[in-house]
Amino acid sequence: MSRPPGRKQEYHKISRELFVLTYGALVAQLCKDYEKDEDVNTCLDRMGYGIGVRLIDDFLARSSVKKCRSYSETADVIAQVAFKMYLGVTPSVSCSSAAGNEFSLILDKNPLVDFVEELPAERASLCYCNLLCGVIRGALEMVHLAAEVTFLQDRLKGDAVTEIGITFLRKAEDRKHKRN
Amino acid sequence: MSRPPGRKQEYHKISRELFVLTYGALVAQLCKDYEKDEDVNTCLDRMGYGIGVRLIDDFLARSSVKKCRSYSETADVIAQVAFKMYLGVTPSVSCSSAAGNEFSLILDKNPLVDFVEELPAERASLCYCNLLCGVIRGALEMVHLAAEVTFLQDRLKGDAVTEIGITFLRKAEDRKHKRN
Repeated sequence: MSRPPGRKQEYHKISRELFVLTYGALVAQLCKDYEKDEDVNTCLDRMGYGIGVRLIDDFLARSSVKKCRSYSETADVIAQVAFKMYLGVTPSVSCSSAAGNEFSLILDKNPLVDFVEELPAERASLCYCNLLCGVIRGALEMVHLAAEVTFLQDRLKGDAVTEIGITFLRKAEDRKHKRN
Repeated sequence: MSRPPGRKQEYHKISRELFVLTYGALVAQLCKDYEKDEDVNTCLDRMGYGIGVRLIDDFLARSSVKKCRSYSETADVIAQVAFKMYLGVTPSVSCSSAAGNEFSLILDKNPLVDFVEELPAERASLCYCNLLCGVIRGALEMVHLAAEVTFLQDRLKGDAVTEIGITFLRKAEDRKHKRN
């Protein structure tokens, strides 16, 4: 997880637009490859998982984030540090369960759809940004946190905001144990 | 080509790693889709072209670059402004023809292959970063410059550097006319 010395922060900064358009090309290619939206969604999630598994080292090395002590803190780090770093936006976070293991990341503006006007009628079930869910899931798994990550709302589908739901799957006992 | 007011420069900045890994997923998908390297290369170039055609507006709006007065100036802008903005690196530029219409962008380090160790033996003819050629070609076409853009050297294939060749296709007469 270490980086060679002299590799500066600034070196990593790029404009987002090329990424956003390249992501669009990826989704378009998968839509050619798979007839069913569900298959495209699954593929994007799987690709994202592979990316998250590799991206976590980069994230830990460059973010200086310490071990999180709660699910809530983890959700905050994803929103305020990881999203900011990799997508240039900061979603708001809300906890949506009494058990304290379900969180929503709410994006007023989703940068990944900057160049997308709307989903075509025949692709109404497409989760255009499903790669992100996979990335979060993969990265969390590498720090020993199992989670389900899905889109709960999507502005591309007419919702008022874009909302990513994260449900941490570990039991309360494990969590308590880890804290002590 | 105008941008809504209040959309700040900083808003566009992201870390490159998510992009690099997503690009890797795209290439991997195309390698699944097409058996022949040439077909993958063509597809990447075509995708890149479509991206370049759209990216040029963003570039002109944010770079404050004025109309270039020569091929040489255009090549410098691609290397020093566009590459810097979208990939966070600045290739060196050399002119490689007496006619003054052939240029090389030389990358000591290619950020797009950060996570790639080497091409698999069965993919020896793959131009992994061919999307970039298409992007440059598409963007140039939108400012009325026809060009051929290809990889001349590639560190992934064992070359000492990565070199992108740009050959501007307009005739000397046109160019002279434009300058006056």
